[in-house]
Amino acid sequence: MSNYVGQNIPRNDGWDKATGKGMFTHDVKVPGMLYAAVLRSPYAHARIISIDTKEAELLSGVYAVATYKNTTRKLFSTSAAMVTTAPGAEPVLDQQIFPEVVRYIGDEVAAVAATTEKIAREALKLIKVEYEILPAVYDPIEAMKDGATQVQPIISKGNNICGGPIEFGMGDFSKGWNEGEVFSEITVTLPRVKQAQLETHAALASYSNGYLEVTCTSQTPHPTKMMLAYIFDMPESKVKVENPPYVGGGFGVRIGISGKAEPIAAQLSMLAHKPVKYVYTREEDFLASDTRHGGYITSRLAAKKDGTFVALDTKAVLNTGAYATFGVELLGVTGACGTAGTYRIPNIHYLGYPVYTNQQTAGAFRGFGTPQGTMAVETAVDDIAKQLNMDPVELRKMNTTKTGDSWWFPFPVGSTDLNKCIDAAAESIGWKEKRGIKQVGNIRHGVGIAAGTHVSNASPFCVDYNVIYLRIEGDGTLHVASGIPEIGAGSTTGLLQIAADVVGVPFETIHLEFGSTASSPFDIGSHATRTLYTVGHIITLVGKELKEEILSWTADFINNNRSYMESNPKIECQKFSFSGWPTVDVNSLNMNEGIIYGENIEIPLSIIAYEAHIRGKQFIASKCEVPSNSPPWHAHAAEVEVDMETGMIRVLKIAAAHDIGKAINPILVEGQIEGGVAMGVGYAIREEMTYEEEKGFYNKGYHKYMLPTIDMMPEMDTILLESNDPIGPFGAKGIGECGLIPTAPAIVSAVEDAIGIRFYEIPMTPERVLKKIKEVYGTDK
Amino acid sequence: MSNYVGQNIPRNDGWDKATGKGMFTHDVKVPGMLYAAVLRSPYAHARIISIDTKEAELLSGVYAVATYKNTTRKLFSTSAAMVTTAPGAEPVLDQQIFPEVVRYIGDEVAAVAATTEKIAREALKLIKVEYEILPAVYDPIEAMKDGATQVQPIISKGNNICGGPIEFGMGDFSKGWNEGEVFSEITVTLPRVKQAQLETHAALASYSNGYLEVTCTSQTPHPTKMMLAYIFDMPESKVKVENPPYVGGGFGVRIGISGKAEPIAAQLSMLAHKPVKYVYTREEDFLASDTRHGGYITSRLAAKKDGTFVALDTKAVLNTGAYATFGVELLGVTGACGTAGTYRIPNIHYLGYPVYTNQQTAGAFRGFGTPQGTMAVETAVDDIAKQLNMDPVELRKMNTTKTGDSWWFPFPVGSTDLNKCIDAAAESIGWKEKRGIKQVGNIRHGVGIAAGTHVSNASPFCVDYNVIYLRIEGDGTLHVASGIPEIGAGSTTGLLQIAADVVGVPFETIHLEFGSTASSPFDIGSHATRTLYTVGHIITLVGKELKEEILSWTADFINNNRSYMESNPKIECQKFSFSGWPTVDVNSLNMNEGIIYGENIEIPLSIIAYEAHIRGKQFIASKCEVPSNSPPWHAHAAEVEVDMETGMIRVLKIAAAHDIGKAINPILVEGQIEGGVAMGVGYAIREEMTYEEEKGFYNKGYHKYMLPTIDMMPEMDTILLESNDPIGPFGAKGIGECGLIPTAPAIVSAVEDAIGIRFYEIPMTPERVLKKIKEVYGTDK
Repeated sequence: MSNYVGQNIPRNDGWDKATGKGMFTHDVKVPGMLYAAVLRSPYAHARIISIDTKEAELLSGVYAVATYKNTTRKLFSTSAAMVTTAPGAEPVLDQQIFPEVVRYIGDEVAAVAATTEKIAREALKLIKVEYEILPAVYDPIEAMKDGATQVQPIISKGNNICGGPIEFGMGDFSKGWNEGEVFSEITVTLPRVKQAQLETHAALASYSNGYLEVTCTSQTPHPTKMMLAYIFDMPESKVKVENPPYVGGGFGVRIGISGKAEPIAAQLSMLAHKPVKYVYTREEDFLASDTRHGGYITSRLAAKKDGTFVALDTKAVLNTGAYATFGVELLGVTGACGTAGTYRIPNIHYLGYPVYTNQQTAGAFRGFGTPQGTMAVETAVDDIAKQLNMDPVELRKMNTTKTGDSWWFPFPVGSTDLNKCIDAAAESIGWKEKRGIKQVGNIRHGVGIAAGTHVSNASPFCVDYNVIYLRIEGDGTLHVASGIPEIGAGSTTGLLQIAADVVGVPFETIHLEFGSTASSPFDIGSHATRTLYTVGHIITLVGKELKEEILSWTADFINNNRSYMESNPKIECQKFSFSGWPTVDVNSLNMNEGIIYGENIEIPLSIIAYEAHIRGKQFIASKCEVPSNSPPWHAHAAEVEVDMETGMIRVLKIAAAHDIGKAINPILVEGQIEGGVAMGVGYAIREEMTYEEEKGFYNKGYHKYMLPTIDMMPEMDTILLESNDPIGPFGAKGIGECGLIPTAPAIVSAVEDAIGIRFYEIPMTPERVLKKIKEVYGTDK
Repeated sequence: MSNYVGQNIPRNDGWDKATGKGMFTHDVKVPGMLYAAVLRSPYAHARIISIDTKEAELLSGVYAVATYKNTTRKLFSTSAAMVTTAPGAEPVLDQQIFPEVVRYIGDEVAAVAATTEKIAREALKLIKVEYEILPAVYDPIEAMKDGATQVQPIISKGNNICGGPIEFGMGDFSKGWNEGEVFSEITVTLPRVKQAQLETHAALASYSNGYLEVTCTSQTPHPTKMMLAYIFDMPESKVKVENPPYVGGGFGVRIGISGKAEPIAAQLSMLAHKPVKYVYTREEDFLASDTRHGGYITSRLAAKKDGTFVALDTKAVLNTGAYATFGVELLGVTGACGTAGTYRIPNIHYLGYPVYTNQQTAGAFRGFGTPQGTMAVETAVDDIAKQLNMDPVELRKMNTTKTGDSWWFPFPVGSTDLNKCIDAAAESIGWKEKRGIKQVGNIRHGVGIAAGTHVSNASPFCVDYNVIYLRIEGDGTLHVASGIPEIGAGSTTGLLQIAADVVGVPFETIHLEFGSTASSPFDIGSHATRTLYTVGHIITLVGKELKEEILSWTADFINNNRSYMESNPKIECQKFSFSGWPTVDVNSLNMNEGIIYGENIEIPLSIIAYEAHIRGKQFIASKCEVPSNSPPWHAHAAEVEVDMETGMIRVLKIAAAHDIGKAINPILVEGQIEGGVAMGVGYAIREEMTYEEEKGFYNKGYHKYMLPTIDMMPEMDTILLESNDPIGPFGAKGIGECGLIPTAPAIVSAVEDAIGIRFYEIPMTPERVLKKIKEVYGTDK
C-alpha cells in the first residue's frame, strides 16, 4: 500500500518555522542561566606562557573562568569520527577544550560564564595571557616538506600528515596506464569554503549531581552525547543531548560537536554550578569551526582511443587545518566516491594526504570530500574528450559504472540510472544545439556537463545504525521515536510517510519524537545523505513487525472475545458489522489507513488499541540494522554566460538530473537538490575563505564571505529518475548532498565551452576569469 | 546477586532538591509564555444566564478569554479512571472545562491568558456573569433522599448516586449473622481532608501545529496525555505530557489531571497561539481540587463467643462532591481493602454509595478509601473485644487473614506477616504494661492498636501496566526509560537498585529517564502503592532478558573474534587476560557490577558494549506485564495522653510495624511510613475541611487548614518485617499509602484506653473531645 510515499506532503516543521514558533538553540532560555564568552588566540601558533584570570574572576556577575589550568586535559576530536569509526579504525584525538599550545588564530584560550553576555565579554578583557609565538605553516604542500613546522608534533605521523595517508587501489594502475592511448594529467586547486549555516553554533549545558544535559545545534545528538561522556569521563547514560528541537542548518559542520560549543558550555556549567549558554557570534562561527577542505588534487586518467577509460590515479593533498576532525575519513571518501565511483575504470589508484596547518580546521561539509574528487576527475574526463574530439556526453555514458558492476564497495552496484541522468540533463540544457558553438562578442554562452555519485549512508566508512522504536498509543495512533535531528532537510516528514504506509495508519495520526537522546535509542545522526535512506529502512523493518504483532493480537482477541466484541458499545457506534464473523485467520488480515480488514471484517485500529490498552498490552517494536549502501547518481548540465570585459560569470540554468531511486516526497527531494545547486554555484564562481598571514581569515561573516544571492541563482530544472533501488526503503536512495557535487564541474565545463578557457582553480571569480582572459586573448578579444 | 537491593542508597533526587536546582512546574518558564487566571463560581449551584467577556478581551496584554462559549463541550473526568478502567467498566464522564451549570463554590467559569498574572487577574474582574441561582445540597445522606436537588441530573443514577452503588459479598452474610453470638454495629463519621501537597497544581501548555505539549504536576503523565487527547479530540500521539521532572507531592490529588490545570492551560494555548502557564493559588488548590471523601460508614460485625468473626456488613455513604472523579472506584476499594481485607471473615457484604453534593470534588488521596473502611471495621473489632473482654491484640491475631487464604482477590493471599506486625507493634508500645491501666488525673495515658492491609498495585481494580525499556549505552552503562513520575517517594532511586542487581551493572552508571510521555512507553503512573512493586517487577523481567542478550552476544562475539580480541588495544590496557580462553559457553557466563565473567574469563561490559556499538548492535529490551497484586500488611500501636481540661490529645508514640515483603531501600521505606503516620495523626486529631453554607469551605490554605506541625509529631518506631513475597520484585510489596491507614484507628483506640470514651467521629479536636468528656464525666472528672 502506498498512500503517502511519493506524495508532496507538506513538511511537519513548516508551520512552526513559518510562524516563528519553532524553537532553536538560540531561543532557549532556562531559569538561572549564565552566558558564556570565549577568549581566542590572536596567534596562528603559540605557547601560553602564563595566564592570569584573577581580575576576571573578581568582576561582579562572573561565575566561572575556564582555562587549561582548571579544566579537563582529555584529548578528543570534535568530529563524530571519535565514536563512530568502524571496527579496527582509530580516531585521531588531537583536541582539548583549552589547549596550552594554540594552533590557529581563533583557537580557544579561556572562557567565562557570567550573568550577562556583556559581563562575560568584559571579563575576557581582564584575562592576562603571555604567549611564546611559534613559527606557523599555512599551505599543505609547504607543511609536508621536510623541516616544516610541526603543527601536532606528538600526534601527526610525520610531515604534518594527520592520519593515513589513505591509499587504495583496484586492478593494477601501472599496467592500466601502459595500456592507455590518450592521457590526461591535471591538477585542480580548491578553495576552503564555509557552510555558512543560518544558526551559529550554540549550546546550553546544565550539569548537576553527576548528570549533564545539553541542548545544542548538533546534527548528531547521540554521537555528541558519547563524545561529551568521553571528554568528561562520565557514564554515557548520564549525559543527555538534544535539539530544542530545530537546528538552523547543518551541512556537516556539526556532525559531532558544534565547534566546541557543547564542551565549553558543559565545562563552564560544571565550574559555575549553573546552566550556561554559549552562542557563537557570527565571527566565531566563521573563524572557529570546520570548513570544507581546500587543497590540491592531481588526477591522471588514461583511455583507449575509442574512449574507454583504462586507468585513473589521483593524489589529493588537502588542508585539514590545526586539528584533524574528519580529515582522515574525508580523504577516504574523496577517493572512493569522488574519484572511483562514477566511472567503470578497471585500474585505479588513490593516495590522499590530510595535512595539518596552522589554520582553522577543515572537516565535514555537504559532499564530504566527494565534490573535491569529482572536480578533479570530471576535469580529466573533459580533457580526454577534448583530446579525442568526442562528445563529453557520449564519452561519459560509455564509461559510467553500470548496475551489477563490482567496484570499491564490498558489494556490486545495486542500481544506476546514471546514463538516463546524463541524457536528461543534456536534453534539458539543449546540449545538441548549444554545445561547441563558437562564441564571439562580449557576452559568450556555453554549456557543460558533469556526472557524479555519492553515498546513501556512511557504511562501511563508519558505524551507521539507527535504532527505531514504534509504539501504538491507546487510541491506535502511532508514536515513532528516533534520535535523528531535523536540520532542515525534511526527514521528519518523509520518514513518517514511510511509517504511515508500512504500518498502515493515517499520516496525520503519527508523531515523530526526534532530536533527543532521552527519548530515543541510538541514532548516528543526520549526515552522509543517510537519514531518509537508513532510518527509512529501519522503519520499514520495525513497522512490518509492529503491524504483524497488531494483526496477530487482533485475530486472537476477536476469536476469544466474540460476544464481548459483539456487544461492545464502542463498536456499535461505529459503522462496522460484526455479526456472522468466521474464526479470524491472522493471515487474512491486513491494515490500511488505521482500519484492520479481512474477509467480512472491518474494524478500526483505535478499537483494537483501546481493548489492548485496558488489558495491559502495548504494541511496541524496536530494531536496528544497517542497510547496504546504495549510492545515488546524478548529472548536471549548466548553461553560463561570461562577460569578457568584467570576467563575470552568470549561471543561466542548471539541469539537475538525479537517480534518487524513489522520491518519497518529491518536493522535498527537489528542495534538497536546489539547495545543493545553490551551494555548488557558490563553490564554482564565488565562495572562498581568504587567509591573510598574521591576521587570519578575512571572511568574518556574511558581509565578507560571498555567498551567492538570489539574483545569482540560475533557472533550475530538477529531474527525478526513479530506478527503484532494490535495497532502499520503497526503492529510495539518499539525496541530501548530491545537488552540490556535479554543479561546479558542470559550470567549469560550460565556461570552457563559452570562452575556450579551462579553469583548474575555483572559484572562478571575475578577477581570476579576467586575468585568464587577458592571458589567453590579450587585450584584443 | 544483591549489591544494591536492601541498601540505604542516598536518593537520586536528593542533591537537586537540597540545592534548589530541581525543577518543578512552578519553576518552568519558556520564551513567549503567557499567564493564566481563572474566574470561579461564587455559588454552590447556579446556571450561567449570560457571560460577557468583551471588556476583558480588550484589556491590553490579554491574549485569550475562555468560557463555555468558545471551548470544547466534551464531557470528561479529571480522574485517571477515565482511561484506566478495567475491561467492561465505564468511567463517569461528568465534567467540562467550563460548565454552563456551576456545581460548587469554586467551579470554573472562565479563564484568561495574559502577558502577566496581574493583567490576567485584572481581566477576570472585567468579565460580567449573570447567574440563575439553583438550590444546593451538601450532605450525602440529604442528597440521597427523594426530592433532593439533583447535582448531575443527566448523569447520576438517581438520588445523586454517581455510579454503582458498589456492592459485593462473600459467603452469605445473613446466614453468618445468624451464627453470631456477639454483635457490634457502629457508624463512623469521617471528615473531608485535603492532601495539602507543597506544590500547588500547575501546568504549562503549548499548542502548535496540531501538537500539544504540557509540562505539569501530574502524577500520571501517560494517562494525563490520553485524557487531554480525549478532551480535545486529538490523536494521543500528538500530545506530550511531562513533569519538569519533579512534582512537589502527589498524595493522589493529581492521578489524572491536576485539578483542571492541564486542560485549562491547553485550551488557553489553543486560543492564544502561545504557551500558557497556569499555576493554582494556594486557595484555588485547597478549594478547587479533589479531597479525601468524607461521609458515613456503618459496620455490623458478628463473632462467636470465642472471638471468631463470622459476618461483616458495611454500608458506606461518601460525599463525592460535584463531580465523580474517582468516586466509584474508591468506594470499591473502601469495601475490598478497607473492610474485607484484614480479617478472615467467611460472610461479608458491602454496599457503597458515592453521592453527589454541591461541594468540591472528593477523589484520590493516599489510602484511596481504605482509611475510611479501616476506621469503621477497627472500631467494630475493638467493640467486640470490649464485649468479650478480650485483649484486642489477641482478638485481632486470631482473626487475621492468613497466607494461602482465599479472599476477594481472584487469587489467594500470597504472604502475610500481619500477626508478627501486631506483636511487634504491641511489644514496641509496651502493650502488656500500659493497656487497660485505669487513668485518673488531668493528663491520662492510653495505648491502642489497629491493623490493616491495602494493595501493591491497582490491579484488578483498573488497568495497571508499565512498559519499561532498557538499553545499554556504547560504554556499557544502562539507560532505563519509564513514564513514572517522582512525586517524592524515592521510586526513582529504588527502581535503579533493582535494575543494578538484575542486570548486573554498577548503580552509579544507570540513568533513569522518567516523568515524560515522550521518552517512555506507557506507564500508569505513581499511585496505588504500586510504583516500586509493579515497575520493579517489569524491570526484573526486562533486565533478565537484557542480561541474557548481552551474555549471548558476548559468547558469540568472543568465539568469532578471538584474534581481534586478543590484540585489541582497548583490552590490553585492562587487567584482564584473554590468552588460553576456551570456546565460551554462554551458559557459563554471568555479569555483576559491569563485569562479564565465566570460567577463566573476566571482561568489562564497557568493552563488549563498545564492540557491539561499532558493529551496529544495540542491546535493548522492552516488555510489559502486570504482576498479581500482593497486598502489604500493617499494624500500628499508638500511645496518647489526653488533657481532661482542654480536650487536647497528644500522640506520644506510634509503633508502626509493616510487612513490606522486602525493603529495597530501608530508609526510603521508613520515610514513606513516617510520612503516612504524620498524615494519620492529622486525620485522627486535627485536620478537616469545614463547610460554611453560602461561603464554601473555610479552609483556604495552610493558615486555616490545621496540618499537624513538627511539635505534634509522635516518637515513631518503624518496624520492617520482610515476608519475602513470592510475587514482588526481590520479594517486595508496596508501602506508599500504608503508613496512614491504621494510624487514626490506633489513636482512637488509645484515646478510649486513656479516657474510656470511644470516638465515632474524627478528627478528635479539643472541642469535640472536651464536649464528650463533659457529657460523660460531667464537670467533675
